[in-house]
Amino acid sequence: MDCSLKYNDMDKTKAYGRLMGCKPFDVRKGLSPSRIENSTIEEAGSLSFNYASLPVDDEILDALQALADEQQLIGKYKALLSGEIMNVGEKRLVLHQLTRGRVLEGVSVMADGVEKGAFYEKELSRIKEFSDKVRSGEIKGSTGKEITTVVQIGIGGSDLGPRALCYALNLIGEADGCTKKLNARFLSNVDPDDAANVMEGLDLERTLFILVSKSGTTQETLANRDLVFKVMRDSGIANLVSEKHVVAVTSNTSPLASDSSILEAFYMDDYIGGRYSSTSAVGGVVLSLVYGFDVFRQLLDGAHAEDVVALESNVRKNGVLMDAMIGVFLRNVLGYPYSAVLPYSQELYRIPAHLQQLDMESNGKHVNRNGERLSYKTGPVIFGEPGTNGQHSFYQLLHQGTDIVPMQFIGFREAQGDLDSVSGGSTSHEKLNANLVAQMVAFACGKDDEENPNKAFDGNRPSSVLVADRLTPFALGSILAHFENKVMFQGFVWNINSFDQEGVQLGKILAKKVLAGCEGDGNLEKYSQLLTKKV
Amino acid sequence: MDCSLKYNDMDKTKAYGRLMGCKPFDVRKGLSPSRIENSTIEEAGSLSFNYASLPVDDEILDALQALADEQQLIGKYKALLSGEIMNVGEKRLVLHQLTRGRVLEGVSVMADGVEKGAFYEKELSRIKEFSDKVRSGEIKGSTGKEITTVVQIGIGGSDLGPRALCYALNLIGEADGCTKKLNARFLSNVDPDDAANVMEGLDLERTLFILVSKSGTTQETLANRDLVFKVMRDSGIANLVSEKHVVAVTSNTSPLASDSSILEAFYMDDYIGGRYSSTSAVGGVVLSLVYGFDVFRQLLDGAHAEDVVALESNVRKNGVLMDAMIGVFLRNVLGYPYSAVLPYSQELYRIPAHLQQLDMESNGKHVNRNGERLSYKTGPVIFGEPGTNGQHSFYQLLHQGTDIVPMQFIGFREAQGDLDSVSGGSTSHEKLNANLVAQMVAFACGKDDEENPNKAFDGNRPSSVLVADRLTPFALGSILAHFENKVMFQGFVWNINSFDQEGVQLGKILAKKVLAGCEGDGNLEKYSQLLTKKV
Repeated sequence: MDCSLKYNDMDKTKAYGRLMGCKPFDVRKGLSPSRIENSTIEEAGSLSFNYASLPVDDEILDALQALADEQQLIGKYKALLSGEIMNVGEKRLVLHQLTRGRVLEGVSVMADGVEKGAFYEKELSRIKEFSDKVRSGEIKGSTGKEITTVVQIGIGGSDLGPRALCYALNLIGEADGCTKKLNARFLSNVDPDDAANVMEGLDLERTLFILVSKSGTTQETLANRDLVFKVMRDSGIANLVSEKHVVAVTSNTSPLASDSSILEAFYMDDYIGGRYSSTSAVGGVVLSLVYGFDVFRQLLDGAHAEDVVALESNVRKNGVLMDAMIGVFLRNVLGYPYSAVLPYSQELYRIPAHLQQLDMESNGKHVNRNGERLSYKTGPVIFGEPGTNGQHSFYQLLHQGTDIVPMQFIGFREAQGDLDSVSGGSTSHEKLNANLVAQMVAFACGKDDEENPNKAFDGNRPSSVLVADRLTPFALGSILAHFENKVMFQGFVWNINSFDQEGVQLGKILAKKVLAGCEGDGNLEKYSQLLTKKV
Repeated sequence: MDCSLKYNDMDKTKAYGRLMGCKPFDVRKGLSPSRIENSTIEEAGSLSFNYASLPVDDEILDALQALADEQQLIGKYKALLSGEIMNVGEKRLVLHQLTRGRVLEGVSVMADGVEKGAFYEKELSRIKEFSDKVRSGEIKGSTGKEITTVVQIGIGGSDLGPRALCYALNLIGEADGCTKKLNARFLSNVDPDDAANVMEGLDLERTLFILVSKSGTTQETLANRDLVFKVMRDSGIANLVSEKHVVAVTSNTSPLASDSSILEAFYMDDYIGGRYSSTSAVGGVVLSLVYGFDVFRQLLDGAHAEDVVALESNVRKNGVLMDAMIGVFLRNVLGYPYSAVLPYSQELYRIPAHLQQLDMESNGKHVNRNGERLSYKTGPVIFGEPGTNGQHSFYQLLHQGTDIVPMQFIGFREAQGDLDSVSGGSTSHEKLNANLVAQMVAFACGKDDEENPNKAFDGNRPSSVLVADRLTPFALGSILAHFENKVMFQGFVWNINSFDQEGVQLGKILAKKVLAGCEGDGNLEKYSQLLTKKV
């Protein structure tokens, strides 16, 4: 344990007072070509972060640097990487970065009598072996047919991240190391209509189900497993053996790990939070099956490279740290309660839903890591849709509403796929990026219109942009890690535990009570009647 | 024109001061079985609205009634229905309710020399005739094959509403009047990767494209049309005639209306805002093709029935009015800047995205209908995901974050589809609803935990619930109209124009400038370089 680390609430630091005294930079007046030029920080691979349209100047950045230093962000990151118990509430290590490689060279992490780096590597090689065999046809379905579709059954972290990443790679090709794609579907909700939709038109003989639950006891996931088994039984397909069509991703102590009704189990552990599990077997099995292990390996490499650049302690040289610290300024000094994530890539259309979980479940806390109530704001509400779609929807409020919503854009210099054509003098991808550029400037600079005040734009709407050459598996991994590490750094600033989720427990307990007949709780009974009694 | 109507800002009313003096009701202390029992308002069909877990008491409701009366909400609704120019900025009538029927008996609406009720009815009968012929196989593709898939090409209101409604009916069956389903896909984003995904695996000979653009000039939609035409040309399919595979939904004055490259055009007009257009031909053509005209007719009937019940002026007897007015209390008295929409139905998974547009584009305004700047807050940020998925994601922040997020639940007494089974003593649908009930009580009542403050829940998190028997086409129409009318009423309270969207214009202008080479705007140039220059 690193005894030099101090865990103080943000408002107990010296830097806090200094920061709270800072006035926001006027972007409308101050945005300039040279500011844009000088506000880019290179991250992993081709990824860079540009903060020119965020309301910060050198004075604010100095104050943010002081706060980052005083809260020992890099020291705490290194402690996490070294295997300290950073999830203090649950007394657990936090090891998701280790699933993609060792960030601190020579540092090995022991837990439960196992060297965890070796443990994750072993699972990786098992995933490679298994996915290779399924994709080559060596492992077939129970009736002898090749597997062409995989269905991931999981909820929360076992669904949102893997699903967003899987969707995000749909148009990669041979140049990306993907010679063949399997179909992918995802089943998450306990609503039986979700299963009915996902099972529609499925060729059961050619389908492999991946059951994902760390504890092996997730109510929704087990209910969906049972529904899938029922559909298999009712299918009337001769010789269909459901056990040959189901693998599990779980912890090695869970009931699923030794379940005889599955073909194979892959392991993660209690040191990987659900929302941080995309680079563990939780995302690895499905992505390796669908796109091939090499693609997943590139994604891990991109995330790892990003984990490495995040070690830099100078805010001005570390894009993630900059993003995190300006986020604190927006939240705690300027008081903005939300942040919009706006990817200009249709491939990333479920990334906002993943980041919503990642950020809101990690940092939506009102007590510090010791359980004491905080007197400042923590994590904001995250929402978003891809551009240009959002432009024709909620951007109206972003431009002209009564509140200011900070925005985080994501853009790429090239499309992922090959299809494009010129229409009206430009390609679709050129139009896409022209819109992104236009929005950043429109939000920053606004437009006066004294004659028609309903056509006036105040400007000074803060935005940043993450840019990469193309949405490759590597870039996708880097973007994922950027946000994971941003959330981690902000949690350190706020002195909260970003790695537990006690807020989900009460609902689970009460739902069980409802299913057991409400046990005399009149409110539960009345609401239950409302949901059962026909009018 | 109804000269008895006065258009005053909310803070100029007498009721406003009274409302601002109201203290919120303590739901944690005050929720009781009798309160739940007495807080249901019946709406259209089986739909009802329950507000027991919202922080209001009789004093507040009286103040809200006074404000609704003073702002003449029902009078303004009737003026709108009667064809007054309610979209004052664009000098247009607002007629989306008329697309589903006449709410005020005997009132006909003339515009452009046409009786608009008859106009929409005529389009309906044309949609019926055309969709019947396609579904029966009388109208075939150009190579003589039956149409099995329809692809809607549109963005914003031409996409979000129709898409959400189409997805929401996927499991209806013969008992709902649906004897056959065509496949549906939606193409919206100018990102060429969207087109590449949507075109993947498409059988062009069996596909009908629906090009939806009121103006006929929407950049994204025309670019996607050109991409689709390119794919058709490149397909090498003999005798494939693209004109036979494309219909349009547009205004009858648009260039598309007379375009020779389309098979047929269906019309809406300038009195139907994009985000309100789901019940016009914009939603009607695709829904009638996919599910049959009878299903679309039921949806219209459900929306119409809801439009009728919204005429009631007593807040306590009008669920939509109650929902709208309590929303004003949450926004302007309690200051909550967002509202989460949480449907406990996987079928409704894109409804939050539609409501995000509907609400934020309508009411994200900072000037009143005369263009004067307002000194109070208007529309909130809307976001959401289906339960139970959200429970394993951002509900952590909703339960234990530092801010309070009002929630709007939606639930159904039955599943839409047939698939379900008992697992661990209950069906999946019972589990779904048990979770909904549990969440409402957990958010309202919280839970103390003095030993483990990180496991304590403050409670008093406001929520309401819309409940219907089952997600039928009729119920779906009612739910759609509930939200449309809620947004309209809130716009009347705030004295804004909920029917224009000037905030989307600046981005369009600047995007054109970027495509034209930035015209010397240094900021546009620098950001463009960032998006084009490879590292």
